Amino acid sequence: MITIRDVARLAGVSVATVSRVLNDSAIASKEARDRVMKAVNELGYRPNANAQALATQSSDTIGVVVMDVSDPFFGALVKAVDTVAQRHKKNVLISNSYHQAEKERHAIEVLIRQRCSALVVHAKILSDEELIPFMEREPGMVLINRIIPGYEHRCVGLDNVSGALMASRTLIKQGHRQIGYIGSNHPIEDEAQRHQGYLQVMQEEGITPPQSWQVLASPDLQGGEAAMVELLGRNQQLTAVFVYNDAMAVGALATLRENGIAVPNQFSVVGFDDIPISRYTSPHLTTIRYPIFAMAVAATELALQGTAGLLDPKQTHLFMPTVVRRHSVAPLRNVAAITSSSQDEM
Amino acid sequence: MITIRDVARLAGVSVATVSRVLNDSAIASKEARDRVMKAVNELGYRPNANAQALATQSSDTIGVVVMDVSDPFFGALVKAVDTVAQRHKKNVLISNSYHQAEKERHAIEVLIRQRCSALVVHAKILSDEELIPFMEREPGMVLINRIIPGYEHRCVGLDNVSGALMASRTLIKQGHRQIGYIGSNHPIEDEAQRHQGYLQVMQEEGITPPQSWQVLASPDLQGGEAAMVELLGRNQQLTAVFVYNDAMAVGALATLRENGIAVPNQFSVVGFDDIPISRYTSPHLTTIRYPIFAMAVAATELALQGTAGLLDPKQTHLFMPTVVRRHSVAPLRNVAAITSSSQDEM
Repeated sequence: MITIRDVARLAGVSVATVSRVLNDSAIASKEARDRVMKAVNELGYRPNANAQALATQSSDTIGVVVMDVSDPFFGALVKAVDTVAQRHKKNVLISNSYHQAEKERHAIEVLIRQRCSALVVHAKILSDEELIPFMEREPGMVLINRIIPGYEHRCVGLDNVSGALMASRTLIKQGHRQIGYIGSNHPIEDEAQRHQGYLQVMQEEGITPPQSWQVLASPDLQGGEAAMVELLGRNQQLTAVFVYNDAMAVGALATLRENGIAVPNQFSVVGFDDIPISRYTSPHLTTIRYPIFAMAVAATELALQGTAGLLDPKQTHLFMPTVVRRHSVAPLRNVAAITSSSQDEM
Repeated sequence: MITIRDVARLAGVSVATVSRVLNDSAIASKEARDRVMKAVNELGYRPNANAQALATQSSDTIGVVVMDVSDPFFGALVKAVDTVAQRHKKNVLISNSYHQAEKERHAIEVLIRQRCSALVVHAKILSDEELIPFMEREPGMVLINRIIPGYEHRCVGLDNVSGALMASRTLIKQGHRQIGYIGSNHPIEDEAQRHQGYLQVMQEEGITPPQSWQVLASPDLQGGEAAMVELLGRNQQLTAVFVYNDAMAVGALATLRENGIAVPNQFSVVGFDDIPISRYTSPHLTTIRYPIFAMAVAATELALQGTAGLLDPKQTHLFMPTVVRRHSVAPLRNVAAITSSSQDEM
């Protein structure tokens, strides 16, 4: 077997120099590099993968920043990164940002300090200006669920507005007009975009939804439960609601059930995300599928390509959501009579 | 302001030596240590916290190993560790082990290599013999949901058998005798212990549950759904089931609903863990509370004490589960007539 010592001898340099050249260290001189690579080629030397991984420890770990791993949406994201990492024999380290600017910055810094050169970052609170220096310093850093102008090739985004248009139109098509909106009280662009999609559809239909039809709460089970209590209490004769995410929608379903309001016969609900639990609710939740697994896989591959300097600056990565029709939407009752019988419960 | 230079001058040693002493480095000699501490006391010097954190970077990160962060049980565990970490101004890095021995070992090694000296490890596949060398090497490593003899002071456990006894007796007390068991197909001690608790209660009641009453499946929503389909298909006239965990119980509830079997009137279900979704199912799930948050907080505090050499070797940390009575258990129908009317739906 050809060893690193054979290469060093033939190249007339030290073993350490061969090692530096093979690991792309900036310390190796141009001349040493040429001599070593010539010897490597002549001898057909193949470096030991394990030894190399040890030497370049910086790149064998992929860092992931999410808002909260206990949220099933981020759980799915992390799982996707892990899947790609295993394929590439890399490790994954995860850090939480908990919806706060200071912690978001800190989570990125911690992973960089831990020598993660491939980074998949879900950052929604920091401004573009605060994120760009990180992007400049770390060629293997890729953003997920966010697009920064000028860095599109390193951003994997979702068309949130289109998703919200789909959700709202799903309700409109079933004859609903008194449609409420339950949103997130975190001031992030996802909320602004989904809210905007809802308002756009209502406007297209000539409806101006009053503030009393719209409630913002924490984007989780409790938030959805509380927001639905609030909407019912306002007594606005709503017949349907578009909910910011599925966790909130599950909370809203519980409130409706406890108030004896049958879904979908008396009230329709559309969620967003399609987390696993949405197939197990009663009724099963009609929702907008956020392809988070595919997006996180794409982001991880991009991050690894970024560390190797292989990114194509012309490529963009904008994913589209799709409608998942289950059983929480039905035609509006008094409209059902005049629509064809083929328009069954969705 | 008194600086580290003043201390070095008074002690007659170099600044580096003062730094080593203040950071508890093993390199500093006994004599240097005494001189430095005398100078520190005389001058009233207080080291800068930030500088110190930088110097002892090894201990400012807490590592957590869980099986799968996308499982809400582990999500809650990670959140608890994060809560303690924030209080101590430490970072948290998370690594997944995915129910496989090789990945479990790897997850621990990755965090150690990343210089996490405080480690909260949920390891169920590796043997005691494989874990002990890690425990010996890392005084800040604490196990959660596992107890290794001889290391009880660094293990935070739950009395799983007692929890399973509580769950099974909750059903027995309501007159049920034809009680099934849905378990996990992961060969870990939690499964063995919960299964054992079920069998013990049945035996106490003079019932020998046939194999056909017991099904093992993956410990998640899909597994519970499939296991319930299997149990119903076997047509064993069961009136209740104790389910290994809440995720599976939620899946089982969906199967029962789709088969028109009313819970709790026709069939009773008890879960285990008390994950957040269990308060939002229809009906709300009666379950056994696994105090994972309190346990993970305790484990994290112990890990930090371990890094500082402050652990009390006489202390043990065995937590007890409790019954959470919601609405998925009711008295057996034909027994209801002869029991007092105070035994309402639980």
